[in-house]
Amino acid sequence: MDETRRQDPQHAHTGEGARADEGRRTFLKSALLSGGALASAGALAPALISGAQAQTGGAKPGDRRNHYYIPASDKTVHWGYFSKSLKPVIELDSGDYVTIETLTHHANDDSERMVKGDPGAESVFHWTKDKKNVDRRGAGPMDASIHGRGAGEGFGVHICTGPVYVRGAEPGDIIEVRIIDVKPRPCANPQHGGKSFGSNAAAWWGFHYNDLLTEPKPREVVTIYEVDASGERNWAKAVYNFRWVPQTDPFGVVHKIIDYPGVHVDHSLVKENHGVLKNVRVPIRPHFGVIALAPKEADIVDSIPPGYFGGNMDNWRIGKGATMYYPVAVPGGLFSVGDPHASQGDSELCGTAIECSLTGTFQLVLHKKDRLAGTALTDLRYPLLETQDEWVLHGFSYANYLAELGDKAQSDIYSKSSVDLAMRDAFRKMRHFLMTTKGLSEDEAISLMSIGVDFGVTQVVDGNWGVHAIIRKSLFAGAAEV
Amino acid sequence: MDETRRQDPQHAHTGEGARADEGRRTFLKSALLSGGALASAGALAPALISGAQAQTGGAKPGDRRNHYYIPASDKTVHWGYFSKSLKPVIELDSGDYVTIETLTHHANDDSERMVKGDPGAESVFHWTKDKKNVDRRGAGPMDASIHGRGAGEGFGVHICTGPVYVRGAEPGDIIEVRIIDVKPRPCANPQHGGKSFGSNAAAWWGFHYNDLLTEPKPREVVTIYEVDASGERNWAKAVYNFRWVPQTDPFGVVHKIIDYPGVHVDHSLVKENHGVLKNVRVPIRPHFGVIALAPKEADIVDSIPPGYFGGNMDNWRIGKGATMYYPVAVPGGLFSVGDPHASQGDSELCGTAIECSLTGTFQLVLHKKDRLAGTALTDLRYPLLETQDEWVLHGFSYANYLAELGDKAQSDIYSKSSVDLAMRDAFRKMRHFLMTTKGLSEDEAISLMSIGVDFGVTQVVDGNWGVHAIIRKSLFAGAAEV
Repeated sequence: MDETRRQDPQHAHTGEGARADEGRRTFLKSALLSGGALASAGALAPALISGAQAQTGGAKPGDRRNHYYIPASDKTVHWGYFSKSLKPVIELDSGDYVTIETLTHHANDDSERMVKGDPGAESVFHWTKDKKNVDRRGAGPMDASIHGRGAGEGFGVHICTGPVYVRGAEPGDIIEVRIIDVKPRPCANPQHGGKSFGSNAAAWWGFHYNDLLTEPKPREVVTIYEVDASGERNWAKAVYNFRWVPQTDPFGVVHKIIDYPGVHVDHSLVKENHGVLKNVRVPIRPHFGVIALAPKEADIVDSIPPGYFGGNMDNWRIGKGATMYYPVAVPGGLFSVGDPHASQGDSELCGTAIECSLTGTFQLVLHKKDRLAGTALTDLRYPLLETQDEWVLHGFSYANYLAELGDKAQSDIYSKSSVDLAMRDAFRKMRHFLMTTKGLSEDEAISLMSIGVDFGVTQVVDGNWGVHAIIRKSLFAGAAEV
Repeated sequence: MDETRRQDPQHAHTGEGARADEGRRTFLKSALLSGGALASAGALAPALISGAQAQTGGAKPGDRRNHYYIPASDKTVHWGYFSKSLKPVIELDSGDYVTIETLTHHANDDSERMVKGDPGAESVFHWTKDKKNVDRRGAGPMDASIHGRGAGEGFGVHICTGPVYVRGAEPGDIIEVRIIDVKPRPCANPQHGGKSFGSNAAAWWGFHYNDLLTEPKPREVVTIYEVDASGERNWAKAVYNFRWVPQTDPFGVVHKIIDYPGVHVDHSLVKENHGVLKNVRVPIRPHFGVIALAPKEADIVDSIPPGYFGGNMDNWRIGKGATMYYPVAVPGGLFSVGDPHASQGDSELCGTAIECSLTGTFQLVLHKKDRLAGTALTDLRYPLLETQDEWVLHGFSYANYLAELGDKAQSDIYSKSSVDLAMRDAFRKMRHFLMTTKGLSEDEAISLMSIGVDFGVTQVVDGNWGVHAIIRKSLFAGAAEV
């Protein structure tokens, strides 16, 4: 599995690298403040952009937080898998900030709108008959000896930026990820200035696929959506859709269905239907579908099924202002983020959201295991989401499919998906949370779950299906008797 | 199945009955306006309280709506079943209003707080060795020849008030039920003035029951909650809980578990644990768990599994301000309501909500089948919920289990419960709604479902399990291009 180390991203964690280029840092900082013009300027290496280590970079006295920037490029992403063996893109200390560009793996559904003119996206998607910048896409064999789809076989599809190494993080600790900001990535093609775009693929792994009413059956349909990059309009609207037709990749493999990520769609072969979903406005809920630490159970892990390490949770509540807590499984935690979504409904029914490149700013806080007793993080063995008003627990068909399903876990999980099992897991996790964090007895917890906790279908398309359980914080805000 | 006609409720639909007692009508009207003091005054017969037919009762000129009142009593309820053969409690015209008292079937979990001093509740729950006012409880045999639990066997548990016959309603029509108001039923025991109470039973049919952590296992636990009847406080709080212990009913049957509705709990036998869920405030969501028309497939139908006729949908969104639409299956529709809840979470995990008697005011509107073409109600074959902001579709493990599962449907459904199947049904119904009502193509509908529709777990405790799909109206509020 040495392929996982194939990419050798730049290290920028020592601070020296950043200090060596004052001009760039100043540029990066202003780029960040101005809302993400960075990518189009072609600065593709990670960097420290402000903080204690950037003594000459304008840090305020007493400000001991560093702020790093990780642009998306072929050197800073891993595509379709998580791995405890990946070399970190940066290292940081607890409390530091990092701004991370993420790219949707569906950008090539409409490369004019989502790749063209964008150096970061172009470097990741670059694929000619002579050169494929990011070869491995998925956790499958590099020689594609199973299906012949391509390196990694598309067993895992998400472009993940990272990983980020949190200094001092060890198995048993908890890493808290605060999502400070989330912004759509502006289209770099001057023809579509001021807009961002996303793709929704109603694909073969969707819940609907074998249950269609109209002909031709089955079919895959891609709908391109437009999002206002300025933030003035908080809704997305459809631009057009097209039916997938076989696409031949630069290596000559024909993709009759959407079976390998990043294949460029030749628009001379598809029929664009404009005017679809006319006047329908889809409120945007920008969030990261994949937000993960590295699991310990295998060296290279398919990015699709979520688990205790987070991963492809596909919960639209994981957006700006939200906080995730994860149990650390490997040294440094190895935080990665990807699968950016402009909007998604609970269930992600047809297989994808509005897949739309986003840039997020995160603060990572380490909680050491010997300081957890008596806190809300005691005995946390699963990813926990906190929003301003809610605590959200994530149940999966298998809480830790990598450990529970044995050697063939990564393939078997796809035939064992079940909302029923995910509901069971969500019940158990919420009970655990209420008993551990809120100090309730089992009887109190169970009664409260029935009358004040809402269970929803997170997703039915990611192999390890999800049900989330939401409890509002306001339930615990009661004063003493009045 | 003549037992279904055992009860011979008063008819008040002609208006003459009401007119015959001006004094009572005037009293009833003022009682309604004052918020439900009616029950404690002992007026237990249905009545017309205002409207066109009540010429001398204060109806305004031009007001052609009638307003009826159905108190809860042993003469106005059917317990644990629906039946197309039930004699209507009242008949009304499309557009008329009806205020209906509903009683929780869990009131005898704490009769001091939920029955004592309340003539309506006392008449329904009255059961001595000599007299059981409402004998049939459930759709099972009257001789209890299957389990020996009691008449009707508790195959169905909800006290339903009604039915209401809508004049002119025929199979193929749609009945719209607008929920105008919902109020908690004040406790009639002066010891607890100004309060309402409810019971939450973590019972053997709960999702948690065979998955408990702590001893003794298994166990049933009842938690009594208090609700402010004045409406000043919008939360419920726990009063105490107790573990169910065997209870002997007046006919000598011992109920080791909660296997028959309305059994009086002898509080000298249980240990009340006060101080549970201290300082936890559960926001109230008053709603009706059961809100139904009569199904046509069988003469007497268990009230527990929901279906195309509505029934025990257990969706907390069916409260004040909400509107339900149902396909009419039998002449008059035969509308009934019961299973009142002060609050419930999506999933109703432990088997019940805060089961709390409520009084609702409804307006019933008939939509004739020959006028449906081109409207949102075209081809509506399932119960549809409209709230101020949302449309909600209800999927069940079996959309119409009575038709799909054959002769033994009413028992077999309990072994076929599945969230997975309910998710499938919810997907199909939402697709149907979007294609039929909103005029979308299948491809548009499927994309929109993935990015803008939220699927949640309605309940996993009612035999025919439920998943609901929510689409916000705001998605369709977009103006033309701006």
